[in-house]
Formats: sequence, C-alpha cells, structure tokens
Amino acid sequence: MRDISPLVAPKSIAVIGASTDPSKSGGVLFGNLAGGNFDGTLYPINPRADSVLGLAAFPEVAAVPERVDLAYIVLPRQHVRSAIEQCVAADVRAACIVTAGFSEVDAAGREAEDELRSIAAPSGMLLAGPNTIGMVNAECGMMGSFINFPRWENGAISLFTQTGIFTGALMLQVMSQDVQRLPIGKSIDVGNKIDVDELDFLEYAATDPATEVIGFYLESIRDPDRFFARAAEVRHAKPIVILRPGRTEAGSKASGFHTGSPPADDIALDGAMREAGIWRAEDEDDFVGVLRALALAPRPKGKRVAVATTSGALGVMACDHMSDFGLALAPLTRQTLDAAQTILPDWLPAENPFDFWIGIDVKGPLDSHRIGLDAIMSDVESDMLLCTLLAPPNADFPEFGEVFRDIRERNSDKPVVMVIYGGPARDRWTKAVEGLGIPVYAATRPAVRALAALASTVEQG
Amino acid sequence: MRDISPLVAPKSIAVIGASTDPSKSGGVLFGNLAGGNFDGTLYPINPRADSVLGLAAFPEVAAVPERVDLAYIVLPRQHVRSAIEQCVAADVRAACIVTAGFSEVDAAGREAEDELRSIAAPSGMLLAGPNTIGMVNAECGMMGSFINFPRWENGAISLFTQTGIFTGALMLQVMSQDVQRLPIGKSIDVGNKIDVDELDFLEYAATDPATEVIGFYLESIRDPDRFFARAAEVRHAKPIVILRPGRTEAGSKASGFHTGSPPADDIALDGAMREAGIWRAEDEDDFVGVLRALALAPRPKGKRVAVATTSGALGVMACDHMSDFGLALAPLTRQTLDAAQTILPDWLPAENPFDFWIGIDVKGPLDSHRIGLDAIMSDVESDMLLCTLLAPPNADFPEFGEVFRDIRERNSDKPVVMVIYGGPARDRWTKAVEGLGIPVYAATRPAVRALAALASTVEQG
Repeated sequence: MRDISPLVAPKSIAVIGASTDPSKSGGVLFGNLAGGNFDGTLYPINPRADSVLGLAAFPEVAAVPERVDLAYIVLPRQHVRSAIEQCVAADVRAACIVTAGFSEVDAAGREAEDELRSIAAPSGMLLAGPNTIGMVNAECGMMGSFINFPRWENGAISLFTQTGIFTGALMLQVMSQDVQRLPIGKSIDVGNKIDVDELDFLEYAATDPATEVIGFYLESIRDPDRFFARAAEVRHAKPIVILRPGRTEAGSKASGFHTGSPPADDIALDGAMREAGIWRAEDEDDFVGVLRALALAPRPKGKRVAVATTSGALGVMACDHMSDFGLALAPLTRQTLDAAQTILPDWLPAENPFDFWIGIDVKGPLDSHRIGLDAIMSDVESDMLLCTLLAPPNADFPEFGEVFRDIRERNSDKPVVMVIYGGPARDRWTKAVEGLGIPVYAATRPAVRALAALASTVEQG
Repeated sequence: MRDISPLVAPKSIAVIGASTDPSKSGGVLFGNLAGGNFDGTLYPINPRADSVLGLAAFPEVAAVPERVDLAYIVLPRQHVRSAIEQCVAADVRAACIVTAGFSEVDAAGREAEDELRSIAAPSGMLLAGPNTIGMVNAECGMMGSFINFPRWENGAISLFTQTGIFTGALMLQVMSQDVQRLPIGKSIDVGNKIDVDELDFLEYAATDPATEVIGFYLESIRDPDRFFARAAEVRHAKPIVILRPGRTEAGSKASGFHTGSPPADDIALDGAMREAGIWRAEDEDDFVGVLRALALAPRPKGKRVAVATTSGALGVMACDHMSDFGLALAPLTRQTLDAAQTILPDWLPAENPFDFWIGIDVKGPLDSHRIGLDAIMSDVESDMLLCTLLAPPNADFPEFGEVFRDIRERNSDKPVVMVIYGGPARDRWTKAVEGLGIPVYAATRPAVRALAALASTVEQG
C-alpha cells in the first residue's frame, strides 16, 4: 500500500511550466494555485522568469530549497519526459502530469506513458495524469485545476476521477449553485491514470478523517478483485458511489474513444459493484444527487419510508419510483396516525403516503406542516421521511425553515429527503432548509434514488 | 360526440359565487378571470352585490341578458345542487363545479355527484369538476383558475387533467421559468370528472387548430377501448402524452386516496397506451420534458440519432440512455465525417458520438461548434441531433445563438435536442437558443427521453 498524501494533500508544490502569461495553460494553473490560499509553500519553476505572480521562480525543481511533495507538470508533450527525470533526480514525492496528448491520442502516446512510468517507478514517485483537468483539495487550499471553482469550501465528499475534461464541468456544475451545493472537499482527477489508481485513493480516503463519502468516476478498474474487496469493507464507514459510463453495449462501444479505455466487461463490474454494496450511478445527475444525499443526510437505521405530501399525485409517483428501486412504505403506527389525523377532516384518514394538502385549509400552512410532519417524522416504525411539498402561495409560511430545524433536531438520526414543487416559495424554502442536512430535489425520481442510496447503506441483520 | 367548446372556449362566462371579498374562493377565481383579458363577456352572479370588481352583478344566472356558455360554480357544497338547477333552467351550456367535498370525501359525496349528473343530463349541459383548480385558455383569455399563472401566453400544448391541486402546481412550476417554458395554451382540469372526460377532450383537441400536442394527467380512463382507438388515430397528427401515476402496485394502491379513483388494471392500460402509440410519462418531470420536446421540435423523419458532444463522458452516458430507451446511433456518412474531421487533429477520427472538445483548442469555440455541428446536422443518414455541450469559460463564444439559428434554418425539419452542462455560459446559451425550437435539458437522461418520445412519433413503413 502506497501513501498518496503527497499527491492529494501536499505541503509543498512546484509548478513546472508556471507561466507569467495568464492566457497560457501554465499561467492559468499557477494563477489558480496562487489564488487558492494554499497552506504550504508554492514554487513556480520557470527558467526565464525571476518571479511569477510575485512568487520567486526557480530555474528547475532541484533548485527548490526543500524536498517537494508535488510537482505539477504543465509543459508541451515533448518536454514532459525530462521534467519527470528532473523530479526523480530532485527526490520529488509526486508528480501530476497535466499535459495532454498521450495514450488518449495514439500508440506513441501510450509508449510514452509506459516510459514515464518506468522512469518514476524505481524512486517510488507517485504519478497522476497525463491529460487531467487537475486536482483540488479545499482542506489544504490546493486549487490545482485549470478551472477555478466558485464558492470553494471544504466538505465531506472526496472524488477520484479518470477523465480529461468532464470533472471540470462537473465541478463547475455543482459548485456554482446558490444552495444545495455538493460539499466536495477533495477532487483528484488522474486523467489517463498511468500510476496512482482507484485502489490507492480508496486506501487514502478510508483513513482520511475529513472524508465521509467517496465518489469515483472511472473508465476502467485496474484490479477489480482487490478494489471491490477493499471497497466492500470501506463502504460500511464511508459510502461509495461509482459513475462508470458505458453500462450498455452501445455506451461501452462509444466509451472506447476517450482517455484510451477499452470497452470492458461491464456486466461483471456491475455485479461486483452490487455485491460490494457500492451505489452505481446511472448517469451524471444520479451521481451528484446520490452523493449529495449521502453527504448531507444521516445514515438511516432501516429501509422503511414514510411519505408526507401535499400533492396526492406526487405521493403516488414517489410510490411508483420506490417500487422501481426496491423501497417499501413503512406501516405507520396507530399513535402516528392519530397524531397526523388531527390536521385532517374525519373523512380523510391519515395513511402512508400522508397526504395533508387539505390540512392547509383546515389548520393553515404553518400548523399543518408543523403538526403533520412532526407526527410522521416521529413514527418509530419508519426509518426515512420523504416530503413532497407543493409551494404555491397559499401553502407558504415564514417559519418553513424553523419547522424543519425542529423536526431534524428531535430526530437527528433519521434522514429527510425533500421535493419542492410548483410555486414561488420554492427557492425560499430550499434556502430555508440549507444547513439542516436535508437534500432537496426538483422531482420525485432523483429524490427516491437518493432514498434508495441511503437505504443501501443499511447494515443487514 | 359532444361539442365541449362552450366549456373549453366559452364566449360568455358567469361566475356563481363571485365574491367582492378577494380572500374568498369566489373572489380569487373571479379576480383572476376579470384580470385575464377574457375575449367574451364576464358576468358575476352575486345576489348581495351590485357589482364585483367594477362589473355589474346579477342576482342569478337566469338574469343574465344572453345565453351563458359557461358557468363557474364557486359555492359551499350545500348550494351547488340548486346552482346546477338554476343553470339548467337558464339553458347554460356548460358548468364547472369548482367546489370540493364530493366523491373524494365520502359516499354521500359520490351520491351527490350522481344527482348533479342526473339533473344536468336531460339538457345536455356539460359538467366539469367538482374539486378542480379550474380551467385556463390563453387563446380566449380565460384565466378560470384559483392560481394566477405567471407569464401567460398561448401555445401549442393542450392539457386535460383529472386532479384536485396538482395541475395548479404543475402550471406554476412550468409557467414560472424564465426560459424553456412549457407552451400551454389550454389547461382544462376536470377534478373528479363527473361528466366531460378524456374522450370528449380528445375529440375537441383533434380539431382545434391551435392544439398541436395533447397532454393528459389521468387517474382513470372511462372507456379505455374507445379512448385508445381514437387516440391511435389522433396521435399521428397530434402527439399524445399521458401521465397516469400508479404504474406499480404500490403506486396504484396509494392512488386510491385522492380524487376518488379506484386502483385499476394498470398493466392493461399500459399495453393499450403502447399499442396506440401514446407516450406514457414515467413521472411529473418526464411529462413536462417530453411535452416540451414535442411542442418545440419538428417531428423527425426517422429514429437515427447523431450525437455531437464536447464531453466524451456525457456522450457515453447519452448512448447508455439511448440503449435503455430503444434508440440507436446513426451511421454517419463519409462526407459528414470528412467535414467533421476538419476541426479535429488527425489522431482523433470523427465518429458518432462526435466528440469535438479538442476542436475548441484547435479551432476555437466559435469555429469548432459552427463547423462541427453543421457537419453533423447536415448528415443525410441521421434524423435527430443530440448536442451535449459543456459550458466552461473557454468553450463560450458570443455567437452561440447565431450558430444554432443557422443550423436550424438549414435543416428545419430535423430536431435538435440539447444538454448544456457545467459552466457559467449555461444560462446565456439556454436563452440564446430560445425561440429556435430546441428543447434544452440539464442532464442526459431527460434529453434522451425527449429524443425517444420524438422517435415514437415516426410513422412506420
């Protein structure tokens, strides 16, 4: 087992190819690193500059006055080999080859990768890349990416990805939201993955105190047997989500075209993921939705779902999706039903799903939500609560956030997953539950996928 | 066959229970109607007021100086029967009973509905409701709903729904978007559906010149044989989408609780929908996404899909979803591939999916999108184009809208479905293609569902 912390959480970083020109790759990456409040020391390596962005430049990595944990290599392809040789000579612990144009391009590129690997191997220097968007670690302030992610803050999710550009887009997509952002603390993209792999990262994440949920975007798995055996252990403490496109024959065929991964036996991998208790995301949306739920909500004690809804229609659609994804409605206790009944007229018996729209007329929006949701949430025979709530003006009330804060406080070990639908109160409500550990979705299907992923973390027996 | 135009497109409307108090149901509904620029004449019926919102009030509907097409009844339940009797006596053509508390409540409510039906039947007066959110027709300016929908404009979609409140939430959800709104011209909610039904509406919509796409939210289908036989004819000219929750046993069981519909044999209905060539929406999100595609995009000539992508990962995920939903990649012609190749380096052969991210580096964002997309769109062996586009800063260009306007103009009969992902250009790009007949989605799955729905409209043989 290798310690990859010099790559993921370095104390010193050199950027070979740090450019004074902010329009060049080496200028962009260094600029993002320099602006990222890195906890350690940052060294621009540039033989033709005295300084870059105010930091003293060094002509080569060997000239840096301390042993370097991580060197980013942002040079044209033909200069990468000598940079790696320099890093080995200078006893650098890890190198991230950002440059593209290797195995994803042609056979010569694949040979060049083999060569780079052989040069680094004797020293034990860790390699990431080539062809990567970069690596980000909010915990130590490393913004080692071409893309400067907005609203960057530490979080419980650690990502390991094997992709040229997609990780950057994913991070932009999820980090630019006003609310319900994905709390990603670390995002390590290894591009063509010539060395450090998913098993190395899994071992790192397993013992990293800040990591609570692990996400992988993988095009290949180097040693499936060892990886899934270890994943099956780790996921009890830290749930694992894998996005591996190409789960169909057509998709697998198409996946041959980028970052050099051959189509693989997806059926075998799919079975291995299921057996290991890993959630396989069906696509980019599911990946983000499920990671959000696992990061925000507490782990449920069982799989029984109570549904509270202000739309009969949404409640039924949620039940359809629950059936599709193997979830069942909880049988609510008599005590729960009696408490819930107090906001309904006699002719509408409280049930699961608990449809309490009429309660808004009977008791007003505050009391119907407060009393009804508290009754359902307190049920001892259910393990998770799905709220599918309509947000038209007559259902709105100023204390929405307080109601859910109280409910969460009284039942801190029970997950709440929410759909907010149809009405101007939607944005305000979403903001109001921010920070309460309640993932909010725009539709029933992703919400039920989130519940199913939470249920998949429940220990059997 | 009954002509339901007095209900859907009335020339005169009376509101029985029009209140001068804007906080009461009869005040809200009348206020929305009065503010909706109704093309015909509006009569408040209120024996205790001289006028309502400046319009002369009448003590009873018989006092109105013309034959009334449509009377809304917004009265407490115990007064509904006499209002219906008044309407019949005054030869009113259609009545919409807004009041709730009938078959969705109890057996007495069901009996009351039977009675109302018998009172109206001899005269042929059409009935909608009870327990409805109301009816909207943008073409004639009828905002006959409790909820005043924002940004109300005429459109190609006509909806018929059987629900208490969900239609209101759906309308708020889809009409309040800044862009990519659902173009709903008519939305007729019949609540408990005691009289006018889906077959009546289907006949109306079939001959209504403004209706191009028909959407149904149904909890029951009164005469499935006749309805599906007619739907199988109509859908050739006007595609039909049905949302019927309760497609699983759990969902069907849950659906028994609202608006009084019993669980039905969903499997038989599902088969009938498929056989009739109707798109069955899996949930609220699919309903809206598919209706948008059918309303915005032209009808394809075949089912072969070309995929142009700036993310290999999204291209593969799109292929996975295409495989799930029965779509296949088009084999692109040599001519197409040669033209597409001009924006790629030699080592990356143009294929389908056409991954042209590298073209952004080679040719810049404008030329890569312009040349690449035009090449793929012009392919004679493909029938639809899916664009999955990343929107980070380096992929952005000011002429995004113009590029797609040109592409659509040169291929006006070929649908383009778009995913815009990951980046600050997302909102601007979405706005830029507004009005070009290009439905835009936030993820690959709904986009591929839209393609599959478009493909389902292709005539066999």
